[in-house]
Amino acid sequence: MAGLGRMGMRHARNLATRVRNADLVALCDPSSETRARAASELGVADTYSDYAALLRHPGLDAVFLATPTSEHAEQIIAALDAGKHVFSEKPTSLQLDQCKRVEAAAARHPRQKAMIGYVRRFDPSYRDAYDKVQKGLIGTPFMVRSQTADLNDPSGFFVQYAAHSGGIFLDMSVHDIDVARWFLGGPAAVRVYATGTVAVHEGLKSVGDLDNGIALCEFANGKVACFQASRTMAHGHETLTEVVGTQGRLTIGANPRLTRVDIADAHGMRNECTPTFYERFEPAFVEELDAFVDAIAQDRALPLTLADATEATRIAIAIQASIRERRSVEL
Amino acid sequence: MAGLGRMGMRHARNLATRVRNADLVALCDPSSETRARAASELGVADTYSDYAALLRHPGLDAVFLATPTSEHAEQIIAALDAGKHVFSEKPTSLQLDQCKRVEAAAARHPRQKAMIGYVRRFDPSYRDAYDKVQKGLIGTPFMVRSQTADLNDPSGFFVQYAAHSGGIFLDMSVHDIDVARWFLGGPAAVRVYATGTVAVHEGLKSVGDLDNGIALCEFANGKVACFQASRTMAHGHETLTEVVGTQGRLTIGANPRLTRVDIADAHGMRNECTPTFYERFEPAFVEELDAFVDAIAQDRALPLTLADATEATRIAIAIQASIRERRSVEL
Amino acid sequence: MAGLGRMGMRHARNLATRVRNADLVALCDPSSETRARAASELGVADTYSDYAALLRHPGLDAVFLATPTSEHAEQIIAALDAGKHVFSEKPTSLQLDQCKRVEAAAARHPRQKAMIGYVRRFDPSYRDAYDKVQKGLIGTPFMVRSQTADLNDPSGFFVQYAAHSGGIFLDMSVHDIDVARWFLGGPAAVRVYATGTVAVHEGLKSVGDLDNGIALCEFANGKVACFQASRTMAHGHETLTEVVGTQGRLTIGANPRLTRVDIADAHGMRNECTPTFYERFEPAFVEELDAFVDAIAQDRALPLTLADATEATRIAIAIQASIRERRSVEL
Amino acid sequence: MAGLGRMGMRHARNLATRVRNADLVALCDPSSETRARAASELGVADTYSDYAALLRHPGLDAVFLATPTSEHAEQIIAALDAGKHVFSEKPTSLQLDQCKRVEAAAARHPRQKAMIGYVRRFDPSYRDAYDKVQKGLIGTPFMVRSQTADLNDPSGFFVQYAAHSGGIFLDMSVHDIDVARWFLGGPAAVRVYATGTVAVHEGLKSVGDLDNGIALCEFANGKVACFQASRTMAHGHETLTEVVGTQGRLTIGANPRLTRVDIADAHGMRNECTPTFYERFEPAFVEELDAFVDAIAQDRALPLTLADATEATRIAIAIQASIRERRSVEL
Repeated sequence: MAGLGRMGMRHARNLATRVRNADLVALCDPSSETRARAASELGVADTYSDYAALLRHPGLDAVFLATPTSEHAEQIIAALDAGKHVFSEKPTSLQLDQCKRVEAAAARHPRQKAMIGYVRRFDPSYRDAYDKVQKGLIGTPFMVRSQTADLNDPSGFFVQYAAHSGGIFLDMSVHDIDVARWFLGGPAAVRVYATGTVAVHEGLKSVGDLDNGIALCEFANGKVACFQASRTMAHGHETLTEVVGTQGRLTIGANPRLTRVDIADAHGMRNECTPTFYERFEPAFVEELDAFVDAIAQDRALPLTLADATEATRIAIAIQASIRERRSVEL
Repeated sequence: MAGLGRMGMRHARNLATRVRNADLVALCDPSSETRARAASELGVADTYSDYAALLRHPGLDAVFLATPTSEHAEQIIAALDAGKHVFSEKPTSLQLDQCKRVEAAAARHPRQKAMIGYVRRFDPSYRDAYDKVQKGLIGTPFMVRSQTADLNDPSGFFVQYAAHSGGIFLDMSVHDIDVARWFLGGPAAVRVYATGTVAVHEGLKSVGDLDNGIALCEFANGKVACFQASRTMAHGHETLTEVVGTQGRLTIGANPRLTRVDIADAHGMRNECTPTFYERFEPAFVEELDAFVDAIAQDRALPLTLADATEATRIAIAIQASIRERRSVEL
Repeated sequence: MAGLGRMGMRHARNLATRVRNADLVALCDPSSETRARAASELGVADTYSDYAALLRHPGLDAVFLATPTSEHAEQIIAALDAGKHVFSEKPTSLQLDQCKRVEAAAARHPRQKAMIGYVRRFDPSYRDAYDKVQKGLIGTPFMVRSQTADLNDPSGFFVQYAAHSGGIFLDMSVHDIDVARWFLGGPAAVRVYATGTVAVHEGLKSVGDLDNGIALCEFANGKVACFQASRTMAHGHETLTEVVGTQGRLTIGANPRLTRVDIADAHGMRNECTPTFYERFEPAFVEELDAFVDAIAQDRALPLTLADATEATRIAIAIQASIRERRSVEL
Repeated sequence: MAGLGRMGMRHARNLATRVRNADLVALCDPSSETRARAASELGVADTYSDYAALLRHPGLDAVFLATPTSEHAEQIIAALDAGKHVFSEKPTSLQLDQCKRVEAAAARHPRQKAMIGYVRRFDPSYRDAYDKVQKGLIGTPFMVRSQTADLNDPSGFFVQYAAHSGGIFLDMSVHDIDVARWFLGGPAAVRVYATGTVAVHEGLKSVGDLDNGIALCEFANGKVACFQASRTMAHGHETLTEVVGTQGRLTIGANPRLTRVDIADAHGMRNECTPTFYERFEPAFVEELDAFVDAIAQDRALPLTLADATEATRIAIAIQASIRERRSVEL
């Protein structure tokens, strides 16, 4: 496991205790303090400050990356060239050419598995909806509306990172884009348009970013998607996807309830909501790694390809261009 | 219209403006001030302090009673003997012999309509559920759970009336009892048992009453009902009825939402609730009077009989006896 | 009342029986059969085949129009010039210059009331949400997503009218546009973009129309709206509006439930949905006419102006242009 | 692990792969075929046909029982006398004296942990509700309504076991009884009354059992509980608990949704439901074993005692007596 920040530690804990057929054997992080703490908690003897050294760890089969996005592409390629299977947190890269380099590296190593962590594809509710669509429950799906909305952080901590995030759609909407393509059968995107606003975090204006955005995407076969991203929700994290078909509609996550508890009190009838994406997708992160490890063990095809990951980035980049240029952008 | 308190005025307004085929022609109330205010608001010229005088109002077809419960029986009988159709707010009486006297009076005047206002039978949602049951949607219904729960009044104003209310089940549960009998096909009640507690309003203890009660009722054909009554809800008035059948279950009023508005804010995902029964049943009160007036105009049978009303009182009286005697009571 | 089709008869019944302070005194429709049937049902003696004759009906105070959209503008102007107050079903016109002519006529008769029936402004749930926004419950509103979705008509009956409807957004979305402007404080629209698809009714392609559309609208003050229109829902009519603010979100109509009945059966936990807009908005149509009549009686300002109605049409026209030209359109 | 039926295998899989700090080292089942299959799936070398032999397995720390209920008491006692910690599926026994013998055995071995698997106490939603009650969110809790309702099995397979199940309340309601005591602070039960019906499975009548039952339970401190049990639901398994307090109400499981997917189609707005208790409580079964194992590792008190388990059985036995005798039963 490389990258032992908050998300990296979650993956590491899952690998250590919950993922079938995986042994967590080595850790990598630039911070010695972080390495020591993680090694102790996870019961892993071997740690590395240097990623290249990690790749030389004896008997290593697969590498898992939760490093900064800017390092993903190089590290994926290095892992592949070192003969390792590799799983990386999304996205592949904020640059399209880097995504393409990763795809090329994978093509050079066809026996090795490489997957970007588009975790929703492994979430039980998304899978249930996908299976229902495949079985024809809603006829032919033709529109997806998908939203990622985060609980507002009043400190505006993320504003300082905005200059390097690629913009709200690249940062937040690639999951939604991937999900839309998945449900619609992977059609080619032909045109996007987006708008949005700075509702709360004025600091975003200086870098041309938004705290609430909405985008439309047209696909070659007449299918349509709408993506919404927000950093300013009052009630919690809300990931919601609507799949509209000719004979029905599926909605995943209409109420982002945290538990099965309903409260009837002076505030009305209510339920608490998932504070972050992790409470929402916690089991899916285990399913995701299980699926990746099982695909290696059984040499099975992965349910999502590097090309899928690249396409999510490509569409998000076009959406960001639409924001900058205030016009629709052809793909 | 006799009785111009809050509920009487609501009926009077409905008769004046919303009930088809009704003309509100005379008002009766002991208070001259109340009469004057009502006459002015409703545009009704003739008012009476004396109920007997009201019954002599020229051309009067029907009387509507929203007087104190203790007066219902005598007034219904007087109206029938004066040749009038009569609608009375529920219940017929808190005494079973009085209910029987009312039934006997009606039997003497078979051409006249007499109905007690069990309003839920006219509520669009209850009617919809009833129609679904009749059509077999849930197979054979065998159990009803029905609840009347009021928003807590912190002033405990009702405590002073508790000595004369007949107890929480006679005061609050006759609607639920009527509804259960309606959905279950009017089976004979054979045994009841009840319990409850004083959760908030300690003053009730001195008169042997409860602020929260729950009762079980067995019917001759093996059908079962459960009645819940509460005066201490924090979220609003909640009338809820569950009808369980061999092939499904219907629930009326699972969430007592006030409007179609959902709020997502720091309190979670929520909706406001109906503060009182009136916001919940406001359209049903019009339907109820429409049904009564139409039954007169077209000389049609009423959907609920005086015997139904008597039976609700009879069962409620038995439930109160169970509370007093801490044992099951046979009917 | 002029125009006695289905919607006209609904208004006429409301005027005859439910609207306070209104007397329905005359009817107008080109069909003698329709006039006769309506006169009989409504108990109205005077009927006219000719709209100009209706306007000369002695003592007439106000005219209500449920005629074809193409006649609204001329008839509103004629009513105003005849000294009458006038209520017309939406929209004012499909042509912007006609809307402007109507506004000019009203300006010539400032003592007369003229209102276009944007009924959602009178719906209890929309009003509740509006009041909550005004009280600051969700902070500053900055985004509205509003949808009008109709139950699919498998016969595709509407396809034959598509050539003259102005397109799906002009036909279906003017309510949503009006609602968005209302909640956002009436900002000036600056840019729109729209897309959509023909998912079911292939016949629409020949006239360049869609059966599902989605549009984005940017306003001068950085506020944003998204409009969705569908003719192909499987579950019923669903009018849904989300108002997103800096401290919360309101959703009106998240579940288009028909009654308060929930069904638990082999299909899961479920509720039936409103089949058409009328079941959804039936009480609002009474409130709307009450508000109009009361504004006349008390010479009060109307809650929505002809300029509001014109602006909804103007934005819808721009959205239709965006569909035709596959680019964003500046206003 | 002793007992490798369906539930035993679930526990065994959890012990083998998901429970922290547990090593599954030996299996016990009378069937050699079952033992072989389980050993192979779980990767466990040592299996026993004889429970006494299992207890002699070298190095064994704790025993987990998913054997028939009639064997629990003897096996728990044997495990304790052999110096082992012991976890048993609920209930302790259908006989009160056996429960008492188990308590006495545990008292002889105070350093060893013994717990009966009342799994709801470990369910995240129940825990969330419990924590909210402890924090005072609903004031003082005074009533619990708790229901266990199973999807109807049209084959009526369970009817043949009814003669030995102890009756519907002993078989199904002990979880509800335990949960009510937990939320209400463990008050002493003073009186119960129950009724019910055979709605579907006529075969139950010959053994005096019901397929739908409802019971009331009064506690010494004026608190009240209502227990519902059903074997005939059409929509799925529904475990629901309502905790009513002086300042609010919590409901756990109001809608037994299977996933976060909502379906809008010709059946209305709907969601699929959990088919069995296992889909509902699957994560809680892991939490339960984690809690037990952690309590051993850290020598901590268990969150529920053998006395709690005994009391659930004692109340259920009294409820069954009420059914037989058609009267309230004092405890």
